[in-house]
Amino acid sequence: MERIEHHASFGGRQEVWKHTSSALGCEMRLGVYLPPAALAGERCPVLYWLSGLTCTEQNFITKAGAQQHAAQHGLILVAPDTSPRGAAVADDPGYDLGQGAGFYLNATQAPWAPHFRMEDYVVNELPALVEQHFPATEKRAIFGHSMGGHGALTLALRHPGRYASVSAFAPIVAPSQVPWGQKVFAAYLGDDRAAWAAHDAVALVATARERLPLLVDQGEDDEFLPQLQPELLRAACSQAGHPLTLRLWPGYDHSYYFIASFIGEHVAHHARALRGA
Amino acid sequence: MERIEHHASFGGRQEVWKHTSSALGCEMRLGVYLPPAALAGERCPVLYWLSGLTCTEQNFITKAGAQQHAAQHGLILVAPDTSPRGAAVADDPGYDLGQGAGFYLNATQAPWAPHFRMEDYVVNELPALVEQHFPATEKRAIFGHSMGGHGALTLALRHPGRYASVSAFAPIVAPSQVPWGQKVFAAYLGDDRAAWAAHDAVALVATARERLPLLVDQGEDDEFLPQLQPELLRAACSQAGHPLTLRLWPGYDHSYYFIASFIGEHVAHHARALRGA
Repeated sequence: MERIEHHASFGGRQEVWKHTSSALGCEMRLGVYLPPAALAGERCPVLYWLSGLTCTEQNFITKAGAQQHAAQHGLILVAPDTSPRGAAVADDPGYDLGQGAGFYLNATQAPWAPHFRMEDYVVNELPALVEQHFPATEKRAIFGHSMGGHGALTLALRHPGRYASVSAFAPIVAPSQVPWGQKVFAAYLGDDRAAWAAHDAVALVATARERLPLLVDQGEDDEFLPQLQPELLRAACSQAGHPLTLRLWPGYDHSYYFIASFIGEHVAHHARALRGA
Repeated sequence: MERIEHHASFGGRQEVWKHTSSALGCEMRLGVYLPPAALAGERCPVLYWLSGLTCTEQNFITKAGAQQHAAQHGLILVAPDTSPRGAAVADDPGYDLGQGAGFYLNATQAPWAPHFRMEDYVVNELPALVEQHFPATEKRAIFGHSMGGHGALTLALRHPGRYASVSAFAPIVAPSQVPWGQKVFAAYLGDDRAAWAAHDAVALVATARERLPLLVDQGEDDEFLPQLQPELLRAACSQAGHPLTLRLWPGYDHSYYFIASFIGEHVAHHARALRGA
């Protein structure tokens, strides 16, 4: 682990680290925000952010305005990159496949399988690393945006008990049913639709053992609504009796301006689960 | 005026506009944040932000986190680009001269004089444009960062009565005495040191007619401290009896992480002057 950036921020510190990931077989970068409580020596719970297509670890830490809320609630924020990277890692000319488009799953198909293991990375390697190197407790929550909203929802649903809470901004809720998801699932997982369903939030809520409440915010002027389909999640949760708070916001789009407008409420939501506050 | 971006943000709307500037003789872009009060039809006072070297209109609107505070206080935020732009505009290979480095003055020397008239643009053309196209009152305040902190301080000091309040993050307070300022002043204004002093905050406070209080925040770990020299401003204000609040913040650097950490206090400072709240 090598620290490559550090900036004082709201009484805490925004850092960027790089390390060699064993799960992904490449160098990875991650943003880590340490709130004032952590700098004072207190162990703090960790809130993981998963970003959307094309993002690196930088987008969230520079644009979301989350640090002020993490400082207030005493949460560590961890924001990893969105895929393995580098010349040795497979890629595709499209922005929606390959590097920058890891989709938070473990690929089974060539040429993606050896490196594209973002589920292993986010669920196992990253928390182990964070809990070893920073003043972190083992309490974890997860949230994300778009592809990262898909990641947050599916990883929380696939790993019961691992996350105290989950939320998403404009998530891809039914990747098996929309172009973005169909393209990458065919590439990463092959043609077996059962394998797709295991990484599809709408399919997963139908059989979820743990009734972890889902908090989802969605802008009604989101230019990617056909890829997101929030009503499919509402219907699936309604049918399964899975608790969902789905809020539709007139005028809001898919950008970080939307995320910033509601990030404080999401961090407070996770703080209640992580700290009981 | 053509609107090229619009995003819902904290109940208001972040917009980006382009127009042909008569002062600068080129196309210019500017960020305009309209708070909920303005969208509801209320005329609101305007807080102008001036950015630092290399910035465009995008840096402040994506990274500073100011919208939430402008929404709360009912202020319009206007963030112009930092210089004239385009193939017809003179430039220099250095990041600190020419395009992206307008220094908020009117150049008198070739090849800069015809286009580099940022003082005219910010003080006259821009407010006229804003007050014509948006639900704005004629109450104005100004703040900025680094080169833009220099801009805010010098424009407020040079135009008494024009701004209700002024503040700066990590401003270049004495450009005549530091490399950044000496390079651009020689280029834009020539060798006459009296012309330099007319655009130097430390020189201007010595003879300021209006005792407009200055609010300045400065990080003590700022990597550009030798170019900023806040103690020169403290000494000049002390000698002139000019009111100054200079706050030095241990650990903070020159980045937008620093700006974001204190932007709420600056917007509140301007809201008190603009709205008496």
